[in-house]
Amino acid sequence: PSSSGDGEEEAEYPAAAVRAKSIYMVSDGTGWTAEHSVNAALGQFDHCLVDRGCPVNTHLFSGIDDLERLMEIIKQAAKEGAMLVYTLADPSMAQSAKQACEIWDIPSTDILGPITEAIASHLGVSPSGLPRGAPGRTSHLTEDYFRRIEAIEFTIKQDDGALPQNLHKADIILAGVSRTGKTPLSTYLAHKGYKVANIPIVMGVELPKTLFEVDPQKVFGLTINSVVLQTIRRARAKSLGFSEEIRSNYSEMDYVRMELEYAGRIFAQNPMWPVIEITGKAIEETAAVILRLYHDRQKKCSMPRISKRY
Amino acid sequence: PSSSGDGEEEAEYPAAAVRAKSIYMVSDGTGWTAEHSVNAALGQFDHCLVDRGCPVNTHLFSGIDDLERLMEIIKQAAKEGAMLVYTLADPSMAQSAKQACEIWDIPSTDILGPITEAIASHLGVSPSGLPRGAPGRTSHLTEDYFRRIEAIEFTIKQDDGALPQNLHKADIILAGVSRTGKTPLSTYLAHKGYKVANIPIVMGVELPKTLFEVDPQKVFGLTINSVVLQTIRRARAKSLGFSEEIRSNYSEMDYVRMELEYAGRIFAQNPMWPVIEITGKAIEETAAVILRLYHDRQKKCSMPRISKRY
Ligand SMILES: Nc1ncnc2c1ncn2[C@@H]1O[C@H](COP(=O)(O)O)[C@@H](O)[C@H]1O
Ligand SMILES: Nc1ncnc2c1ncn2[C@@H]1O[C@H](COP(=O)(O)O)[C@@H](O)[C@H]1O
Ligand SMILES: [Mg+2]
Ligand SMILES: [Mg+2]
Repeated sequence: PSSSGDGEEEAEYPAAAVRAKSIYMVSDGTGWTAEHSVNAALGQFDHCLVDRGCPVNTHLFSGIDDLERLMEIIKQAAKEGAMLVYTLADPSMAQSAKQACEIWDIPSTDILGPITEAIASHLGVSPSGLPRGAPGRTSHLTEDYFRRIEAIEFTIKQDDGALPQNLHKADIILAGVSRTGKTPLSTYLAHKGYKVANIPIVMGVELPKTLFEVDPQKVFGLTINSVVLQTIRRARAKSLGFSEEIRSNYSEMDYVRMELEYAGRIFAQNPMWPVIEITGKAIEETAAVILRLYHDRQKKCSMPRISKRY
Repeated sequence: PSSSGDGEEEAEYPAAAVRAKSIYMVSDGTGWTAEHSVNAALGQFDHCLVDRGCPVNTHLFSGIDDLERLMEIIKQAAKEGAMLVYTLADPSMAQSAKQACEIWDIPSTDILGPITEAIASHLGVSPSGLPRGAPGRTSHLTEDYFRRIEAIEFTIKQDDGALPQNLHKADIILAGVSRTGKTPLSTYLAHKGYKVANIPIVMGVELPKTLFEVDPQKVFGLTINSVVLQTIRRARAKSLGFSEEIRSNYSEMDYVRMELEYAGRIFAQNPMWPVIEITGKAIEETAAVILRLYHDRQKKCSMPRISKRY
């Protein structure tokens, strides 16, 4: 997707506007669930999205908890020939959305209803029908909330090899050469409640002693294809405005290969650390691999899984 | 949810295990989409989850892209009396999951299929049927990817009022007293691609001059109910092991009120800054409010929305 930050309007792109199809997403909450599902589904159309063979515009409307605004959006969707994806906890709101879409011939998909109904009959309990912002719902100041906040703050403080004396407090430690995505991966995992520390591997710079003193079960090595790493480093060096000299050391192929081999030797010396190949993986994909291994090591299930209790 | 980090096993909780219902989530990708949808739906059962009146265990299986492991998981779900929630891009895998669940009488919900089909017919394009990890799919090294990474790194560097000379480079600036959730909110927004800086408001500490020189459209004040803030600060002071003396200044009611009033006066002097009440809001909820305002200010649509092009 592009332009989440700079607020483009369809009207500014008359050429694309002719063909671009719109997807309206409406939620009585944040809209992130609808957005997440639509994003996953759009992954199934990468083959025609990349070359803009089937351009798509998405429009996310959050906090829609009254019928009036809901109907205004649906009317607008009808005008634009958009489809509607919605998450509306109040059954009468969901019903209204569905009916209005039928009347105006708008394709629509209910993201929340089917899964809520399935869970309701599985649990034998009726859903509350209350949107997440509704007054009187339970407080967010749970143990889990504080744990997440603490994980995020810990992780930020430990970025880029800082405070190695704290490594024993981390749940997960990531080690890898520059531009293997340690920082974004760390904060992604932190938002899931894990305390993460990341340690850069740089030729000629000694690794902190504490890295070899902590439980090796929690250390993960990151590696990447050398050609891809060079591409990423070149982009990085350019955006940081590195001088030619630094740049060559940082992103020249010989150096990149040597540094990856150096990291590889460290990983070989620490065979308990799983080494994760990140080439071509999105942040959330690498996170999934790490957490699968992490949870699998903690409890020996027949099949790796991440379990939670509610 | 509890225990994502410490890997508990159902068997360790014999009392709860008797009654807890299981939800199995299976994905050929990361599983985050299924998890996100199930979490939203479980919000509809808060009334019986909080007192563990209807205990639930979730089990997330990611990277399941072969029939054999899929069937093994479904068999296990049948044994445990679990329900199955799945996202499987390959239509034959999805079909197999559906049929196996029917045969074994397992309630099941397909999260990806319905939305993908709706989008397919809206676009007039067939879905690829390829899971996200499949070989040959498009690279992640898009402009958008680099923008996100840059946003995350910027945001970490700007945490807690650091480097005020960079405030003009931020997309969003958050200002608020200690424990209004600035840091987690900043990294959450950063993962969505926004460069965020956060500035603590502390009585007796001057705010950086640059805060008043930047576009006031991008500054957001955070405020919170004083009683709730005191509760949060007490928990914080305890976990950090503050001494009685510091603690009283930090979390005593008079001080908390005075500091919030002080922040309120600064906000009043800067009427262009929207002030966001975060009491009782989850991080992602505050993020939704901020981004709605942020995008609304950039383009004057009839209805606030966040738009993206694919
Ligand atoms: N904690 C919660 N309590 C009640 N409803 C929720 C909760 N979280 C999400 N939902 C509902 O799930 C749907 C998706 O939420 P959102 O991702 O915020 O758009 C909306 O209809 C929300 O009202
Ligand atoms: N970029 C993508 N390309 C293809 N399929 C995707 C993409 N992202 C998500 N999916 C599919 O959407 C479903 C949910 O993905 P996940 O959230 O990773 O479990 C899975 O079936 C994935 O294979
Ligand atoms: Mg880094
Ligand atoms: Mg902070």
